[in-house]
Amino acid sequence: MSSSTALLTDHYELTMLASALRDGTAHRECTFEVFTRRLPNGRRYGVAGGIGRVLDAVENFRFGDAEIAQLAEHRVVDERTLEWLRDYRFSGQVDGYPEGELFFPGSPLLTVRGTFAEAVVLETVVLSILNHDSAIAAAAARMVSAANGRRIIEMGSRRTHEESAVSAARIAYLAGFTATSNLEAGRRYGIPTAGTAAHAFTLLHDSEASAFESQIAALGTDTTLLVDTYDISRGIDLAVQVAGTGLGAVRIDSGDVGVLARQAREQLDALGATNTRVVVSGDLDEYAIASLRAEPVDGYGVGTSLVTGSGAPTAEMVYKLVEVEGRPVAKRSSHKESRGGRKAAIRRYKDTGTAVEEVVHAVGAEPELGPNDRHLQIPLIRDGKLVDDLPTLEQDRERLRRALVTLPWEGLKLSNGEPAIPTVFHGA
Amino acid sequence: MSSSTALLTDHYELTMLASALRDGTAHRECTFEVFTRRLPNGRRYGVAGGIGRVLDAVENFRFGDAEIAQLAEHRVVDERTLEWLRDYRFSGQVDGYPEGELFFPGSPLLTVRGTFAEAVVLETVVLSILNHDSAIAAAAARMVSAANGRRIIEMGSRRTHEESAVSAARIAYLAGFTATSNLEAGRRYGIPTAGTAAHAFTLLHDSEASAFESQIAALGTDTTLLVDTYDISRGIDLAVQVAGTGLGAVRIDSGDVGVLARQAREQLDALGATNTRVVVSGDLDEYAIASLRAEPVDGYGVGTSLVTGSGAPTAEMVYKLVEVEGRPVAKRSSHKESRGGRKAAIRRYKDTGTAVEEVVHAVGAEPELGPNDRHLQIPLIRDGKLVDDLPTLEQDRERLRRALVTLPWEGLKLSNGEPAIPTVFHGA
Repeated sequence: MSSSTALLTDHYELTMLASALRDGTAHRECTFEVFTRRLPNGRRYGVAGGIGRVLDAVENFRFGDAEIAQLAEHRVVDERTLEWLRDYRFSGQVDGYPEGELFFPGSPLLTVRGTFAEAVVLETVVLSILNHDSAIAAAAARMVSAANGRRIIEMGSRRTHEESAVSAARIAYLAGFTATSNLEAGRRYGIPTAGTAAHAFTLLHDSEASAFESQIAALGTDTTLLVDTYDISRGIDLAVQVAGTGLGAVRIDSGDVGVLARQAREQLDALGATNTRVVVSGDLDEYAIASLRAEPVDGYGVGTSLVTGSGAPTAEMVYKLVEVEGRPVAKRSSHKESRGGRKAAIRRYKDTGTAVEEVVHAVGAEPELGPNDRHLQIPLIRDGKLVDDLPTLEQDRERLRRALVTLPWEGLKLSNGEPAIPTVFHGA
Repeated sequence: MSSSTALLTDHYELTMLASALRDGTAHRECTFEVFTRRLPNGRRYGVAGGIGRVLDAVENFRFGDAEIAQLAEHRVVDERTLEWLRDYRFSGQVDGYPEGELFFPGSPLLTVRGTFAEAVVLETVVLSILNHDSAIAAAAARMVSAANGRRIIEMGSRRTHEESAVSAARIAYLAGFTATSNLEAGRRYGIPTAGTAAHAFTLLHDSEASAFESQIAALGTDTTLLVDTYDISRGIDLAVQVAGTGLGAVRIDSGDVGVLARQAREQLDALGATNTRVVVSGDLDEYAIASLRAEPVDGYGVGTSLVTGSGAPTAEMVYKLVEVEGRPVAKRSSHKESRGGRKAAIRRYKDTGTAVEEVVHAVGAEPELGPNDRHLQIPLIRDGKLVDDLPTLEQDRERLRRALVTLPWEGLKLSNGEPAIPTVFHGA
């Protein structure tokens, strides 16, 4: 695997570049905008995910010998274009919503300015990252809301591509998950990791009791014992026998977890293990999590639905050319229209702090800013360099937590519907 | 990005390992089996995808200094376990379905034998790869069937994680796609790449005509011109004016592509461009492709639905411990039961070559093999080493093409239903 991101690119970005270098238009100053026309599946809000990874990808977008050799051998582009690519380094400007910010249809999530040549080649990798990470972010935020303060652990690595898994773990943490099972996410992003044992561990041993004894000996009594390999109530009895009433938690991974959690709670309390937590997992999504609110569940393990975006595995963002040499441009042939011109956005709030609307405006035609309103884009790259003091993952996590509190009440409903606040286009 | 796959692993694989090293069970000889309980969304068949990538991942599953330091710093496991991991190298046996083979519920897609310690740690990365790649493979195979011999190009990179995109392109090629837009897939796997221009290229220029002239000058008349930036029929007129009747193709990326393709064909024919192909793209899935069979479409560009598995982004495979020291084991607490014991499979065929059933059998209790029947698993790893003469991607592509022909007629229907052939358990 190459550490360059340069070939994570659609072939046509480079053929467009070759043609434009040849005819001289490659050097025209352009603005590209990333936005989405709609939120998938009747979602009420989007969550900007992947901005930090996009910045890394832009920094690592370099054509080294391996990349150039591939393009030359397969005659993807001509010699002139290869020479140009060899020196490629993005030197333009990027502004965008910070990671963890909410967005809505039409929000200018990312604005890339530079020559056509240097900006067009970034399209594919920028969209890959934002479409994946923002899809996961929206699902994750809904799950955290549904969990209503209870702990959630991300454990979906096995159900998605091994590299998507690392990114999904990062985004789950951004959205408020407590920890991930993914060790590489721990290494790469400093996210807490967690895990204890699977059914295989119990099956490996001569008896459930000997498996529990082994785990307690290795991990201490504050561990989580998986009690549903054979018979759950017998498993809970055994767990408390082996660990004592100081046992950290029991986990139930199958069956009707609501009913089973209640039975487990009663049984643990009867055994005196009143502080032993009940953790449930197994095909949970935001709806299942919400439906367990009335049950004595202390924590959730969430896998498949998180890493697949809970029904919306991609965020449908596009990267559109909106301005050439200061002139607005837009496709016109069909319903897939977009608004030309470089744009930015503000969000308006009531005095109470509740968000009212997303105002997308032409740059240079900014509407009056009310006392509670704020600009949404921040500078990310200036003259090809990352700006200083970019937000950290922890800061972005806090940003999302606060942003969700500002949504009108209906905006946090899990059911399908309209976006939580309308998008208003002002002078654009 | 590390080239080691060792941390693409759930935390609990290593805590299980630590406990088992401590109690001595880590060295018990075990068999783990990868299978799926059901095909997603009423699909009729599964396609083994990712086997080649699994073998690479097993070879690169090594704990170097960076991996060990991460585990030590965060106290994931104890010192004894770190020492064991430092020397880790899988030394066991792997058998499995070759890539491109069809599978059904219960098919033993992959069988991993070794000590508990060395086999359990592979679970996460093996499942990540097989679940992602097989999900894409099933969707891709259905699209190729629907296209019925017409060319399909994979162009979904921007709609999925940037590394999933590379793997999805590989799988699309396995399934019979003609080419991919993804340049890294070209580099890594030697797959043909293709692409010409996007709407941005037209918008960049002062006129549609100058954009077309530029593209023809750079890429020749055999290129594909994108004709729907402004007005499609005017775009087609211009395209033929600029390129002449030798123009390679026109592409339409929006609107009702069936109607538009027919109009484009008539217009091209009237202009004398009778050999100019009509290529359509824009939110196509297998159903849309099939619905265009009666239209004069020469090629399809497929994006989102391919890379997201067309509604089934993960294949729901599990990696289950089925045998310990020769003794079958299985979880028993719920409906999620599995069959213990090491298994293999044969597929039975009629004299006509049509598949009849998948017979999954205990190893050592093989049913009689009819004259048309065949074993499905092949050896992949022996004593930790890849076996010689593993199939190539081209061979696996041909394998899938031939396998689809053997399905009973109903098995190729796109509608939801039962698996194309039943799975029969024999002595297992």
